[in-house]
Amino acid sequence: MTTAPEAHRPAGRPRKAVLSRERILEAAFELADTKGGDFTLAALARNLEVRPSALHHYFSGKDELIAGMRGQLTRRVGDHGFETRPWHVAIAAWARAYRATFGAHPGIIAALATMPVDDEPESIIDYERIASAMRRDGYPERRIVPAIVAIESFVIGSALDSLAPEDNLRPVNNPELAPHLTSAEERARAHAAELRTTVTMETFEFGLAALIAGLVAAA
Amino acid sequence: MTTAPEAHRPAGRPRKAVLSRERILEAAFELADTKGGDFTLAALARNLEVRPSALHHYFSGKDELIAGMRGQLTRRVGDHGFETRPWHVAIAAWARAYRATFGAHPGIIAALATMPVDDEPESIIDYERIASAMRRDGYPERRIVPAIVAIESFVIGSALDSLAPEDNLRPVNNPELAPHLTSAEERARAHAAELRTTVTMETFEFGLAALIAGLVAAA
Repeated sequence: MTTAPEAHRPAGRPRKAVLSRERILEAAFELADTKGGDFTLAALARNLEVRPSALHHYFSGKDELIAGMRGQLTRRVGDHGFETRPWHVAIAAWARAYRATFGAHPGIIAALATMPVDDEPESIIDYERIASAMRRDGYPERRIVPAIVAIESFVIGSALDSLAPEDNLRPVNNPELAPHLTSAEERARAHAAELRTTVTMETFEFGLAALIAGLVAAA
Repeated sequence: MTTAPEAHRPAGRPRKAVLSRERILEAAFELADTKGGDFTLAALARNLEVRPSALHHYFSGKDELIAGMRGQLTRRVGDHGFETRPWHVAIAAWARAYRATFGAHPGIIAALATMPVDDEPESIIDYERIASAMRRDGYPERRIVPAIVAIESFVIGSALDSLAPEDNLRPVNNPELAPHLTSAEERARAHAAELRTTVTMETFEFGLAALIAGLVAAA
């Protein structure tokens, strides 16, 4: 339900003419995707063919830029009907979108996961929507934030896991070390194939359902 | 139960004299902790004051080095009684140790989480121990690998979350945007204080218990 930032840039216009918050964020994602999250604002300015000082009209520093990137990803995750559906139904759809959105930008996942969300209104509004739904559905108030963070931790870890090889726990070179693991991994792959899905996706769905069911039961 | 690599280096001996697999891994952790996981073998050789070619006696490249780092962390996580305790009891202790061990090296978490484990015997043996216990306890074979990966994803995400500010979901600057979140966050902090623990630790324990309970129920 989101529009890629590229859509806002008129085709063929030179880069320098269109320096904007959106254009800077777009270049920051490109840089993080190729070089990882450790890039400097100076490197970002070079890629945009502008002086570093030009970036400071839009972002006071790297922290504010990372916050802006997080805000844009949160918008892409989107709403998933928390106002109208039970929280534990809406949050499964939210978690799927969250994993896909963050998994598309592996270079920046760690930076996004560890930065403070406090000054980033998009994320605060997103969490408020979830907290309101949980409260409405009678979830114990002191458990609301821990439950949200637990699901988020699972999603972030799964986004990283989705970047590992599909058959990552298959002991190809050392099967003699791990006969039970070898057999279990084969059964998991066969089961995913029966369901016409991937092991990665089946693992995510199985874990997500178990975690949400556990959180519902713990309330 | 582990010995820090430093203990193997006689005090006062010059660095060059003690180039070894352990010394290289130690320097790699130092570099990742300060510069992040994107370091090059050339930078690592500089820190060790050796030629890059000297490292190749021990590691054929960055992938093998990262595998070695993962192996060392897996040894530090340790065994947690999978042979004698029910899998769902042992795995809670394993998950706590895993989170603490990986959380101590944030710069390398993403690289460790996404690399293939196939050629890294320490990790394979660790997973085999868990898979054997689950099989012995009657866990459905096709669910063993998805359950292990689900817990691991939660642990990796929690290790990253433990690096974010303690009151990360507290909307300090924008409380008017998020009244329900503000209230829930306050209750979570008060609850953790009553239990004489931190919000981060209470969140991890709550989520871990919910996930394990959900995985047990799903079997």
